[in-house]
Amino acid sequence: MNGTRRALRFTLTACLLLSLPAQAQPADPLPSWNQSAPKLAILKFVADVTREGAPGFVPAPERIAVFDNDGTLWAEHPVYFQLAFALDRVKSLAPAHPEWKTKAPFSAVLSGDQKALAASGEKGILELVTATHAGMTTAAFSQIVVAWLDSARHPRFQRPYTDLVYQPMLELLRYLREKGFKTYIVSGGGIAFMRTFSEKVYGVPPEQVIGSTILTQYELRDGKPAIVRLAKLDFIDDKAGKPVAIEKFIGRRPLLAFGNSDGDRQMLEWTAAGRGLRLMGLIHHTDAEREYAYDRKSEIGRLDLALDEAIAKNRIVVDMRKDWKKIFPFDP
Amino acid sequence: MNGTRRALRFTLTACLLLSLPAQAQPADPLPSWNQSAPKLAILKFVADVTREGAPGFVPAPERIAVFDNDGTLWAEHPVYFQLAFALDRVKSLAPAHPEWKTKAPFSAVLSGDQKALAASGEKGILELVTATHAGMTTAAFSQIVVAWLDSARHPRFQRPYTDLVYQPMLELLRYLREKGFKTYIVSGGGIAFMRTFSEKVYGVPPEQVIGSTILTQYELRDGKPAIVRLAKLDFIDDKAGKPVAIEKFIGRRPLLAFGNSDGDRQMLEWTAAGRGLRLMGLIHHTDAEREYAYDRKSEIGRLDLALDEAIAKNRIVVDMRKDWKKIFPFDP
Repeated sequence: MNGTRRALRFTLTACLLLSLPAQAQPADPLPSWNQSAPKLAILKFVADVTREGAPGFVPAPERIAVFDNDGTLWAEHPVYFQLAFALDRVKSLAPAHPEWKTKAPFSAVLSGDQKALAASGEKGILELVTATHAGMTTAAFSQIVVAWLDSARHPRFQRPYTDLVYQPMLELLRYLREKGFKTYIVSGGGIAFMRTFSEKVYGVPPEQVIGSTILTQYELRDGKPAIVRLAKLDFIDDKAGKPVAIEKFIGRRPLLAFGNSDGDRQMLEWTAAGRGLRLMGLIHHTDAEREYAYDRKSEIGRLDLALDEAIAKNRIVVDMRKDWKKIFPFDP
Repeated sequence: MNGTRRALRFTLTACLLLSLPAQAQPADPLPSWNQSAPKLAILKFVADVTREGAPGFVPAPERIAVFDNDGTLWAEHPVYFQLAFALDRVKSLAPAHPEWKTKAPFSAVLSGDQKALAASGEKGILELVTATHAGMTTAAFSQIVVAWLDSARHPRFQRPYTDLVYQPMLELLRYLREKGFKTYIVSGGGIAFMRTFSEKVYGVPPEQVIGSTILTQYELRDGKPAIVRLAKLDFIDDKAGKPVAIEKFIGRRPLLAFGNSDGDRQMLEWTAAGRGLRLMGLIHHTDAEREYAYDRKSEIGRLDLALDEAIAKNRIVVDMRKDWKKIFPFDP
């Protein structure tokens, strides 16, 4: 054996030795999850559908994973963050609308009368949304949202709203993508609102964000093409609307769905009814200390019937307090 | 130099020699296109937006390419293929609808009275579409379309309709995807109709097909979740509807758009108005021998104002007769 051969053999041996431990113990893809039932179920499911030749194998193009946003990927208390945006925007637009001082629901927002605001109901919320989300081009609206996200702070955590995303879910999204899944957001939130941050914060590109929409119109403004947001509701992507939107935007049934409230029931039901292996999960907000604790009685993100169903059907229920080591990326 | 080293050097030299010609003359990605202006413009554009560090460079996630379907990716004469499907379906459903014998527009279809059918206008077409495209689940509708595509034959070419796709466009779709583009279909055709074959025929997965839609509804049928197609129009993805749908489904402005008729004008205009380099193209049907020749006067796929604009703005106009070596994959 000459010197070159010896050197080659040495290098090969070193390579093998160095790579072996990495193969035997691959890095944990979900480090912020405790080794409890939800994590084990996720890892088993992903292994089962991605192992070529296994009975549960699903080709990569069919690996669709859908996630609700509010309360599933980021927090939603004390109010949906998009509602906080609408309320802030009413305040900033108020000087140009003196009539709002005496006109509900705007008067309730301006005087901080939570009770009157709640009393204005769905009709009131819709009025707020159209007054604050319509009348401008889609490009102008995105800029308004981006500026708000840059400056607004969550009342309890005193941080940008986009900091209040769940670290374990960021890890789950990334892990699924590494395993060939296409990750989608399917939320009652506004599609244009979410698209301003989904790619940066979640790694989910705009074309994989599905949400509620208002009507828009193509027109020429000063000779330049523009798409203008109209003060008219198009579609509410909640409850039975979620499977309808999934079928319309994706055209395939998801393999995996995560939600956190009764608004996600039909999405989970539709996913569960597919052939072969499917994974359905709920995030249960049980951690008042690190985040919030709420379920059956909450006005925002109520989790009642969907929780009963998940328990009866042995689906994943993530107990945030017990199953997650960390809630937010900034947690110690 | 010992034997091992000599062997190594020989192997390296052989590798270099073998790989050099391949590097100097990469395989032509568009072999069915003649070396004329459209092909050169496409190759230059793709090189300009994908060369890292170049002034026109666009990151891969933003490389969105949109294509009309009828007349751009597959043929549309003597009638839109989806209309042929609707007419065939009226005939097969007729025994269960004795009233159709005397009721327009169905009577016109059953008696083969083209003139009466044309006279029923848009309202008549809509009645045909809802009678033949609604009332069943989305899964059942897909099966009906698949069965029709398997058995129906184009009246002139006597081949399955899915054979009548343009070979040069298949090459363009594949080439763009290799270069990091996401290829979308944005068509006036029905979204559910196109999704039954888009992946197999074009390599475009269902979630990248945008089209016209009817309303659907989520319900339980025999205790099983189903999405049911309703006899009510939701959205027509044509003319100004195309940029609206692009913004809604994709949320990004395309880098490249191809169409073939006045229905694609706004899609091309919206694409062209984006910042940086954009590529807009029209397919001009000029080959009566191998396919069809029609433009300004055609009822189906009329190309008039969009052609004037394309000429005035120096956009790509593909002359099918001159620019394409092959039209269909089965051409010699």
